Amino acid sequence: MPTILGQNQYGKAENRVVKITRDGATHHIKDLNVSVALSGDMEEVHYSGSNANVLPTDTTKNTVFAFAKEHGIESAEQFGIHLARHFVTSQEPIQRARIRIEEYAWERIGTSDANSKFIGADDVKHSFVRKGQEVRVSQITYDGEKWEVISGLKDLTVMNSTNSEFWGYVKDKYTTLQEAYDRILATSVSGRWRFNWTDDEQKMPNWEKSYEQVKKHMLHAFAETYSLSLQQTMYQMGSRIINNRSEIDEVRFSLPNKHHFLVDLEPFGLKNDTADGAVYFAADRPYGLIEATILRDGCEARIPVDMTNL
Amino acid sequence: MPTILGQNQYGKAENRVVKITRDGATHHIKDLNVSVALSGDMEEVHYSGSNANVLPTDTTKNTVFAFAKEHGIESAEQFGIHLARHFVTSQEPIQRARIRIEEYAWERIGTSDANSKFIGADDVKHSFVRKGQEVRVSQITYDGEKWEVISGLKDLTVMNSTNSEFWGYVKDKYTTLQEAYDRILATSVSGRWRFNWTDDEQKMPNWEKSYEQVKKHMLHAFAETYSLSLQQTMYQMGSRIINNRSEIDEVRFSLPNKHHFLVDLEPFGLKNDTADGAVYFAADRPYGLIEATILRDGCEARIPVDMTNL
Amino acid sequence: MPTILGQNQYGKAENRVVKITRDGATHHIKDLNVSVALSGDMEEVHYSGSNANVLPTDTTKNTVFAFAKEHGIESAEQFGIHLARHFVTSQEPIQRARIRIEEYAWERIGTSDANSKFIGADDVKHSFVRKGQEVRVSQITYDGEKWEVISGLKDLTVMNSTNSEFWGYVKDKYTTLQEAYDRILATSVSGRWRFNWTDDEQKMPNWEKSYEQVKKHMLHAFAETYSLSLQQTMYQMGSRIINNRSEIDEVRFSLPNKHHFLVDLEPFGLKNDTADGAVYFAADRPYGLIEATILRDGCEARIPVDMTNL
Amino acid sequence: MPTILGQNQYGKAENRVVKITRDGATHHIKDLNVSVALSGDMEEVHYSGSNANVLPTDTTKNTVFAFAKEHGIESAEQFGIHLARHFVTSQEPIQRARIRIEEYAWERIGTSDANSKFIGADDVKHSFVRKGQEVRVSQITYDGEKWEVISGLKDLTVMNSTNSEFWGYVKDKYTTLQEAYDRILATSVSGRWRFNWTDDEQKMPNWEKSYEQVKKHMLHAFAETYSLSLQQTMYQMGSRIINNRSEIDEVRFSLPNKHHFLVDLEPFGLKNDTADGAVYFAADRPYGLIEATILRDGCEARIPVDMTNL
Repeated sequence: MPTILGQNQYGKAENRVVKITRDGATHHIKDLNVSVALSGDMEEVHYSGSNANVLPTDTTKNTVFAFAKEHGIESAEQFGIHLARHFVTSQEPIQRARIRIEEYAWERIGTSDANSKFIGADDVKHSFVRKGQEVRVSQITYDGEKWEVISGLKDLTVMNSTNSEFWGYVKDKYTTLQEAYDRILATSVSGRWRFNWTDDEQKMPNWEKSYEQVKKHMLHAFAETYSLSLQQTMYQMGSRIINNRSEIDEVRFSLPNKHHFLVDLEPFGLKNDTADGAVYFAADRPYGLIEATILRDGCEARIPVDMTNL
Repeated sequence: MPTILGQNQYGKAENRVVKITRDGATHHIKDLNVSVALSGDMEEVHYSGSNANVLPTDTTKNTVFAFAKEHGIESAEQFGIHLARHFVTSQEPIQRARIRIEEYAWERIGTSDANSKFIGADDVKHSFVRKGQEVRVSQITYDGEKWEVISGLKDLTVMNSTNSEFWGYVKDKYTTLQEAYDRILATSVSGRWRFNWTDDEQKMPNWEKSYEQVKKHMLHAFAETYSLSLQQTMYQMGSRIINNRSEIDEVRFSLPNKHHFLVDLEPFGLKNDTADGAVYFAADRPYGLIEATILRDGCEARIPVDMTNL
Repeated sequence: MPTILGQNQYGKAENRVVKITRDGATHHIKDLNVSVALSGDMEEVHYSGSNANVLPTDTTKNTVFAFAKEHGIESAEQFGIHLARHFVTSQEPIQRARIRIEEYAWERIGTSDANSKFIGADDVKHSFVRKGQEVRVSQITYDGEKWEVISGLKDLTVMNSTNSEFWGYVKDKYTTLQEAYDRILATSVSGRWRFNWTDDEQKMPNWEKSYEQVKKHMLHAFAETYSLSLQQTMYQMGSRIINNRSEIDEVRFSLPNKHHFLVDLEPFGLKNDTADGAVYFAADRPYGLIEATILRDGCEARIPVDMTNL
Repeated sequence: MPTILGQNQYGKAENRVVKITRDGATHHIKDLNVSVALSGDMEEVHYSGSNANVLPTDTTKNTVFAFAKEHGIESAEQFGIHLARHFVTSQEPIQRARIRIEEYAWERIGTSDANSKFIGADDVKHSFVRKGQEVRVSQITYDGEKWEVISGLKDLTVMNSTNSEFWGYVKDKYTTLQEAYDRILATSVSGRWRFNWTDDEQKMPNWEKSYEQVKKHMLHAFAETYSLSLQQTMYQMGSRIINNRSEIDEVRFSLPNKHHFLVDLEPFGLKNDTADGAVYFAADRPYGLIEATILRDGCEARIPVDMTNL
């Protein structure tokens, strides 16, 4: 046979599972999008179409929903660990499971203010509005021996309206950009961070608290860095995480530079100086795209570098 | 000529204007997407291609950016009023201007907590994260005499995890649906509301406060209504707004019923009862789509009924 | 009651129905996205939550799939007529049905070429690739007496690389645009056309042939018009349809001017003249948006003017 | 320093460049979306914000547009090769350039038919309609010594309406799926293939012809394979390419199984057998996701396995 099979994986993607937990009248939501990818002894299904080693993707879907009931969803990471362990340990031909999860946050609709009391309503504990800010993501991989957990977020749009400069760069024959000493710096953060928890013998991190703290450190580093380049700000965001969170060894960012161009209003007799509060055009395409891995010294990089297809 | 020209309009759509206002070290953002549509004495450009009456769409774009500097952006509605008045009063052939605006909310990145103090940072007042919840919308129309202002929002996803039933409906030969006595009710709210301010002589509403209050009443009505149908909940949301906000005469909703189906776990020997906290499949398509106008008694409906193309 | 109910409608949106027809080994596809909206005697469900007059949206979904089997799908329009008639005539409280349909075109994968013969394959008649060009749309409305059928398309992107000018326009204090004597004219056509078939007594149009002919005339008018403005080209597209297709009385277009800006290459010592074949930047936002209704003389406009939300 | 910098890259993404070539009255279009990613001696900009080694992303954008004029766009791959070579050879700190390109196909609007002649139009050679089928992609990487060229496509939706079965799979306690002996097989192809051209000394492939042939072989293999699993069909698609195209050593596919579920019409007294031509529900989420690499025997896999983020 002149061709051979290389890496392969399969499973059901984007299982949209919502788990409600009731604590009396107080309800809680976990809202996930779970994707399963299984690998192992799968040559025959590719070569001859024999499904003898294939657990159907439909079964992996059923397992996601059943596990949400059987185990609950304490955190996306913990849920992914249950699933990955199950697939690898219960089916001989499956040697590796990768679970990817998106999580959507909800916040409560608070009804117990003066106005609601006026109309006689008690405080409602089962009503929610989707927060709509970042999407939290995680990827759990298990090969029967070692765990790899990568958490992260995407679509978190941030802006500094000052304390950003850009000058002193290389100028070649195609360079027309003017240097900037007070510009807007804005990006839509896509970040991933890898935990050094790899073994059932180790103490497992508190996934929920870790996420909250990583996000806080990342945002603070963004806000507090006086920026000479987006690369510099990005590195500060990553190193702040690693310096403050001992459970994390590696961070990867993909940061589009969401350009806000100062509008030229001189043709209309108007000054548009940043110092006075300026008017900007928020551009779509093209955009700078700045990506890097930040590592704890001595650790190996394992997060794939291509988190975007552009 | 066997064909004639009917209603027509033109202008520059989706001008992405960001205005920063500086109050010392404290900055404020207004982030808008402004679309201009002008109508008037425009037969010739359609019949012969003569542009003698045509203010270029590029000029309408320039005007949006220049006005953001000249007038600032107090609110989307007030900004739209400045623009609409300008186009209608400054160009003879333009008899009607419609300004549509989307607004994206930002919140501050708070940095003055214990952790940040530890690293010596002062509180930062120029750093923001996009809120990412609903998109606020408004439409301002002016014909040289009367104003019509419609405000609203879209993409606000809400859920009640109980206090929703659906039964007692018509059953024909194609009906298979089981009655439900405890279901999830979820929707992505698209709403518009029309102000009774139409004249420069009237006192103008406080657009920012009105928006905040309308959103609050709408959310409270959603949370507090024990629902027998999404139509009933929708009507309560609309009438709560009109009953509490005298500046508004009409509300229009387009509410997709975001189905959360109880998963059948019996084949796996699991009960999945709502009373215990259940597992749901969040479906995409198809979805129920429930739309209605709610009016102050005696008022005329003017918001177009088709806010969706599906 | 200080508030009252205005226009309202409900039904299942986006039912994705695919019908395969087999003619021996030769298969045919119809691939539709069907949305149902019903109106009538629906006050009670809004006021009190009584569903006594409500045919569930789930039932309307079932009806779509059952009718695809019972009646087949001769054309989207014919299928919508079957559905609308059924809902209005079979349920007393339903007085009006509006069916909206999107249709996705497929073309055959041709396998009977020399290469395939080499490997011994016969011609395959059940393999298809989605055409992916425009989405065909239709809207069928029935009130028990009269029909209204509006067909159309969206997302058909067209370009003339010359024979387009734009000059002689109004210049005010915000005008900076340079006149253009040879520019690219490109748009993504969203068009709707209304048939004068309204009554079961009239001979029904050939919906499939009509669509094909309307699209052809529209494209030819776009290609053959030497353009002095997009408005002029748009009017030619609409009047060409009405002049050639007696079954159609009204056309509505919403045409974004997809700007292709000539790139300034002078800083790099390069000429970029249109006459030599030029390099353009294809811009996203903002864009001109040009909309109009073109009518057969003496006919009334009935297609809603707002086909976009921007 | 407890953290260090790992892999990093930067550049301007999504430069939308359109090049018109004129051959008398006959025009030709190349319509690309070009993304630049540069790597090299970039530690300082991350650690201290010094831009001394940074060619601005704005300059990389200018270079894309200038090169479209200077070199023309013979093919996406050839254009990417010009760009990558330029960045690596002209700037000392840049040691690696990766150019990613999306290409959108256009076809001519034919106007010279009987109908157009009737209205007196000559054949127009500057009018185009976007084909709208797949997006062609390519990635060109250069490190100053070796080239890596990966081409591919995405969003090509294909369907076999018969000759697909799925049975004989593993059944565990979560398995409820019924075996299928005549089902629809549909997918939206995302594929990449790697060329064995790596050196300027080798004869360069004919990129345009290669693409056309690869697409044809892939479609024929899809159509002609009697399928027992999507994995089997995928493998056939990949091996057909490698067996027929000596310039290609590796293929990677990511194939969502676009489920078309046979609708249960029994509750309505209707049979829905595949043999008669059946009615299907085209589902959105979840979906099976089947991915694999197919290699020429003896070759190394180099295409990244994660082409999707789910």
